[in-house]
Amino acid sequence: MSKEISIGLLGSGTVGTGVVRVLKENADDIAKKVGGRIAIKKILVRDISKKREYLEDIQLTDNADDILNDPEIDIVVELLGGQHPAREYMLKAMENGKHVVTANKDVVAQFGHDLFDMAEAKGVDFKFEASVGGGIPIITPLKECLTGNRISEIMGIVNGTTNYMLTKMTEDGSDYASILKEAQAMGYAEANPAADVEGWDAARKAVILASIGFNTRINLEQVSVEGITHIEPADINYANELGYVIKLLAVAKDYGEKGVNVRVHPVFLPSSHPLAAVKDVFNAIFLRGNAIGDAMFYGRGAGSLPTASAVVADIIGEARNIVSDVHSVIGCTCYNSRAFCPIEETESSYYVRLHVDDEPGVLGSIATAFGESGVSLKSVIQTRKVGVHAEIVAVTHVVQHRNLQKAADVLQGLKVVDSIRSIIRVEEN
Amino acid sequence: MSKEISIGLLGSGTVGTGVVRVLKENADDIAKKVGGRIAIKKILVRDISKKREYLEDIQLTDNADDILNDPEIDIVVELLGGQHPAREYMLKAMENGKHVVTANKDVVAQFGHDLFDMAEAKGVDFKFEASVGGGIPIITPLKECLTGNRISEIMGIVNGTTNYMLTKMTEDGSDYASILKEAQAMGYAEANPAADVEGWDAARKAVILASIGFNTRINLEQVSVEGITHIEPADINYANELGYVIKLLAVAKDYGEKGVNVRVHPVFLPSSHPLAAVKDVFNAIFLRGNAIGDAMFYGRGAGSLPTASAVVADIIGEARNIVSDVHSVIGCTCYNSRAFCPIEETESSYYVRLHVDDEPGVLGSIATAFGESGVSLKSVIQTRKVGVHAEIVAVTHVVQHRNLQKAADVLQGLKVVDSIRSIIRVEEN
Repeated sequence: MSKEISIGLLGSGTVGTGVVRVLKENADDIAKKVGGRIAIKKILVRDISKKREYLEDIQLTDNADDILNDPEIDIVVELLGGQHPAREYMLKAMENGKHVVTANKDVVAQFGHDLFDMAEAKGVDFKFEASVGGGIPIITPLKECLTGNRISEIMGIVNGTTNYMLTKMTEDGSDYASILKEAQAMGYAEANPAADVEGWDAARKAVILASIGFNTRINLEQVSVEGITHIEPADINYANELGYVIKLLAVAKDYGEKGVNVRVHPVFLPSSHPLAAVKDVFNAIFLRGNAIGDAMFYGRGAGSLPTASAVVADIIGEARNIVSDVHSVIGCTCYNSRAFCPIEETESSYYVRLHVDDEPGVLGSIATAFGESGVSLKSVIQTRKVGVHAEIVAVTHVVQHRNLQKAADVLQGLKVVDSIRSIIRVEEN
Repeated sequence: MSKEISIGLLGSGTVGTGVVRVLKENADDIAKKVGGRIAIKKILVRDISKKREYLEDIQLTDNADDILNDPEIDIVVELLGGQHPAREYMLKAMENGKHVVTANKDVVAQFGHDLFDMAEAKGVDFKFEASVGGGIPIITPLKECLTGNRISEIMGIVNGTTNYMLTKMTEDGSDYASILKEAQAMGYAEANPAADVEGWDAARKAVILASIGFNTRINLEQVSVEGITHIEPADINYANELGYVIKLLAVAKDYGEKGVNVRVHPVFLPSSHPLAAVKDVFNAIFLRGNAIGDAMFYGRGAGSLPTASAVVADIIGEARNIVSDVHSVIGCTCYNSRAFCPIEETESSYYVRLHVDDEPGVLGSIATAFGESGVSLKSVIQTRKVGVHAEIVAVTHVVQHRNLQKAADVLQGLKVVDSIRSIIRVEEN
């Protein structure tokens, strides 16, 4: 119990405050788990004159070097968010022989490679459990608990904002714009919601999950990203009628010799799928391995204390290493160099909603257009009038994305087609 | 890649065969993860003359000492099940300086203490991820990923047999006896199903979860255990009508100064609860921590390959340690010595189903009996005729178990009460 581990925090925002709270409130328990006390020596803040709850007795600094160059600090905990200067601070901390813990998905997704290289060169550890799924343990399970498996797919609800919005659209029947306003009012969505609603936040997490799950480096630039901005109440209703719910998923699938594909898009999920029950701001990561079969990890994907739960676990893990005088036996796990399977070669069933001229024979020409593009249909139904147009909903069999795109192009060119309102993948059980 | 890690397997049954399959089928991937190859040097079998699929090229022995005393074997993997001689073999393996991996809930629940002591004395590691929840990572998450939390409760569906039976009773409306036969025919229930249906399998897992979750040693003898043998279709139907599903749960809750209570019993779970969607033979462990909030871990709780997934993860973890020449930094995590909160002092809401005389004023005397025992009722309804009797269903507010027992005694003594058919706890959201 004599050993004391000193940490320095970069950032005193929502997560930083949460980390301080958790370390303080659970200090006695944590000391037993570590075999020594964890002391927060310094915190980097923007304005040292500002009073902060929970931080009264901690030394504040507005100069990162006070922490990065402090020889007494064992672990630097980066909670600034964003790519810069977070990346540079972490690299410098490692150069100075410090272990690094971060919650920063942006840096891990974009610069994970550099950080692992530096960590290895300097003999320090780099941990980032909080970068995906907030408090949900998923990085450690992938790196340590599922290592006996060949993972074939990972599907995650990894963005709480969009899951909240889709849940509300499903339960209340409201449209996208009004739900976005509500989410913003409740603090679940940012004033500029693009990163969430356009799928970029989920894409970064997809990159991290896929890189670890498939042991190969994935680049954000390779990922196809589609958000939820185009989802209309009609889509929600059809999903419901057909026995599905719409979820925004981060998807990583192994297509064998074609490689690995990683993408973010809305999906029709069967309402019996474990992910379908994941509501509001909750996150969950579902995966399939050749030994475990299906598994799912569920919890709060964001927020001060849940995210702090993961950050503090990493801090404790590192502190235990320091007390035992060992280093982590697992660093970068990208042992493979897999090809990236282009989105065109992925396969799925699709839901397609069209507005067409309300006249005889239209259903036939639509079906023909699909067929000529190599897309076979499971069902096609003309459902209701929308203004002067008729609405048609088609659900395809499993087809190559390339063929579905071809069909969409052909349909778009048909005189009887007014507009393609939605194309959404359908995940079967 | 030069290092080779030798393992010896005790047992070649369902799980043993699964472990061999996973180690062989994923051998190349695993070698990359470990930084060396894992070689299965010997397997202990009952009958060495019997031909076995997957085991053709492995040396079989019917003498455990061939493995326990083999100086070349680094890790002994115990997959015999049952307390003896599994416990003695593991202790001997440790005495001989070998790390031990096991899937054996019986030994871990009853003799975990001895094994941890021996492991510490001999400087070897002891791992048992597969002992709870089959393939689901839960021991490592509790020991490493949720360490920042003070856990307040753990509720697990940890027995696939009973979850399958309750799911079928709910979906098909069949009674306990016929579903048990069906489960036996499908291989989901043993010829002697007592360990599953009476809750003892779940109780052993509850002991392990509680000991790790609350960092205090729990003894199996302290655990209150109730199975599903008394659940009738009427209970399933009332649960459904009231918006619940019946699940058999392993429950561990922190009652503060009163201590920790651990128990196994059926529960009315709100159908919106994450555990309510866990069907058939799937398992899930739900927990609540003061940082993470609610979290759940879901997957296959039994079976050859899912269980092997967890066993192989432990083997890989240990092999990585050997390659890096370190030992695990986490051994026994029972740092505390918490009191055990007696079941009488736990609190819950309850569902009570009674058969009573069908005459005026009965509802009133029932309500009075509850009230005089300190049990306040949320609702009490007379529902239908069952033969000459009327059926009454009462749902209580949250009350002490002691008071509910008192009420049951009083009710049992009432002349108008023919029988108490069911008393089942109700878990509120």
